[in-house]
Amino acid sequence: MHSFKSIKIIDSGKSIILQRNNDTSVRYHSTWLRDNALDPKTRDVNNRQRLITLSDIPINISIQSAKLDKTGTNIFLTFLPEKKDVSFSANWLEAHAYDIKQHNEKGWIASDFKTWGNDMLNHIPSADYKNAKSDKTLLLQWLKSLYCYGFAKMTGGKIESGALIQIADLFGYVRETNYGKWFEVRSEINATNLAYTNLGLQAHTDNPYRDPVPTIQILYCLENSVFGGDTTVVDGFNAALRLKDENPDYFNLLSKYCARFEYKGKAGVHLQSRRPMIELSPDGELITIRFNNRSTAPITDVAYEDMINYYKAYRAFSDIINDPTLAVNFKLNPGECFVVDNTRVLHARTAYSGEGTRWLQGCYVDKDGLLSKISAISEK
Amino acid sequence: MHSFKSIKIIDSGKSIILQRNNDTSVRYHSTWLRDNALDPKTRDVNNRQRLITLSDIPINISIQSAKLDKTGTNIFLTFLPEKKDVSFSANWLEAHAYDIKQHNEKGWIASDFKTWGNDMLNHIPSADYKNAKSDKTLLLQWLKSLYCYGFAKMTGGKIESGALIQIADLFGYVRETNYGKWFEVRSEINATNLAYTNLGLQAHTDNPYRDPVPTIQILYCLENSVFGGDTTVVDGFNAALRLKDENPDYFNLLSKYCARFEYKGKAGVHLQSRRPMIELSPDGELITIRFNNRSTAPITDVAYEDMINYYKAYRAFSDIINDPTLAVNFKLNPGECFVVDNTRVLHARTAYSGEGTRWLQGCYVDKDGLLSKISAISEK
Repeated sequence: MHSFKSIKIIDSGKSIILQRNNDTSVRYHSTWLRDNALDPKTRDVNNRQRLITLSDIPINISIQSAKLDKTGTNIFLTFLPEKKDVSFSANWLEAHAYDIKQHNEKGWIASDFKTWGNDMLNHIPSADYKNAKSDKTLLLQWLKSLYCYGFAKMTGGKIESGALIQIADLFGYVRETNYGKWFEVRSEINATNLAYTNLGLQAHTDNPYRDPVPTIQILYCLENSVFGGDTTVVDGFNAALRLKDENPDYFNLLSKYCARFEYKGKAGVHLQSRRPMIELSPDGELITIRFNNRSTAPITDVAYEDMINYYKAYRAFSDIINDPTLAVNFKLNPGECFVVDNTRVLHARTAYSGEGTRWLQGCYVDKDGLLSKISAISEK
Repeated sequence: MHSFKSIKIIDSGKSIILQRNNDTSVRYHSTWLRDNALDPKTRDVNNRQRLITLSDIPINISIQSAKLDKTGTNIFLTFLPEKKDVSFSANWLEAHAYDIKQHNEKGWIASDFKTWGNDMLNHIPSADYKNAKSDKTLLLQWLKSLYCYGFAKMTGGKIESGALIQIADLFGYVRETNYGKWFEVRSEINATNLAYTNLGLQAHTDNPYRDPVPTIQILYCLENSVFGGDTTVVDGFNAALRLKDENPDYFNLLSKYCARFEYKGKAGVHLQSRRPMIELSPDGELITIRFNNRSTAPITDVAYEDMINYYKAYRAFSDIINDPTLAVNFKLNPGECFVVDNTRVLHARTAYSGEGTRWLQGCYVDKDGLLSKISAISEK
């Protein structure tokens, strides 16, 4: 429970300053406060959407009066020229404070993400499908792990074609593509994708040539009696942060230039994108890794003078991604699957051979469903 | 048909320089050339995917010999230490040249996009559904217009619930969300979204709180006998470029800081995102507009010192978006729909009233399908 000691109007009513009990202070602007007012004429009481536009806020808005209640847990404001009364709780104000030190470095990650290396092998987040389906607490824990690490396993699923959709149904909506609602990952003659062969595949993110790029991916095992065909996952955020640590210039090159990606493996399909291998938000948050040796198209957006170093950076990143200390290896058994945040975690497989069969099915799910499900279960 | 006059190895075999017939020249690096080799050991002959990783390219790679054929339309290279022979056509090299002036300004747009204002009213790209379905040339033209302008209409569709999916099927895959495979846009009691009321809605992009944000949106009319309820579309790229023109600092503020968006209108759903209103690629390409007064959450990632100017920028952008000279207004009739690129084009509706009914259905489709369809039809 937050509270304030005092409130004062500053800058001719353009802002207020609130004193905390620990003698630090926090400021808010009149326009920001008015725009975020929580009263029923500003926000719809049912759906919480804003009912006003910026044009409804007078340009010459100012705060005429600002008061605290006795406990300091609520503030009361009157805005001119509207003569509008608005109140906020100290809790709400603290939760939305912006008079703070903002991020300004490149490559920070959200505080609810934890990066990992091969130490993860002994504590892979995993749940049994039937338990997760029936136990909301267990499901929430599993979903939070998937969000936090970008990776989780699920066991005990049905061994039948399409069973992966039941995993998707736990938290979101399948994203259908030209590969179908789901796709078969097994050896094919004249494969339309190298994934559909028995070749080893370097750790990669899926479909960087797609816009938007697939966010969550499920790979579900139906048969795996071959020699080889193991799965590897690598935390791309960990790899990118290591690159940044070892060579900040390389990190900058892979984030400041767009690479190109392309897929043209099948009649009637031609997908292309132009995005960086390491994507940052404008304020430097590490948000998406795209890395795929098979579908990287000729990179043509890098200045000639930087291309040698760009390739050195690309190679350094590739070497880090290949480093066994970053990789978690495991073999999927029938009825098991792994789920990755494809904007962060890379996956690979070793080559396979022998008389058995390796049959996986894969699908994509939108990440917003995962986040929504976590919030929704948490709030109950 | 491109050709070169001469070829020369430079930088101790680290690059080549090709002389054109007009006496300009173009350079390529050995690593880049080797990585992009088109031979069957580097690229799979069936699916065109790359078979090698960067680790397969020697660090000390250099070009030992470089030759042109008699017509100058093909080049032949030998790489050391692999002693590998690789050839490229002049056409391929010119199409993938990177020794050029790269973009370095903020806010450029791809050359195949055309921005528009209310002049568009007299030449709205439109096609009849049955014709577009049966005539590939007409369909291609319509899809290209949709891509180029981020907006097109389609007429002559069936007047039955779910008919909008037939429009989606012309070029892509529906993206299902918590709103369903499609959603109903009509007045509801206790609406879970202000869209489901008879209120006017300021021009906006849909669901900026979603990650990934919906790319293509279809809004399909089944009934429209009310007074009002007209549709407006605004080219967000045009609006952003006008903001940049009028006040580059405002443009920079809206692109350098993340805004926040949120939807919490329905039990079990809580969607949040942190992205800029004007999103640029790292090399300055204008790629996504997010603007929605109803679902903008408290903006908390802007430095206190910049917040006043950020709000001025936000207001200036809002005013431009409200400017009638940028807006195209029309009324949808039953069986008609409009399609927008929701990462670029905003849509609005006027308030409505009266005894009639206004019933629209909407859905989202992924943009990569649109681009793929255009490429695939074009190449046939």
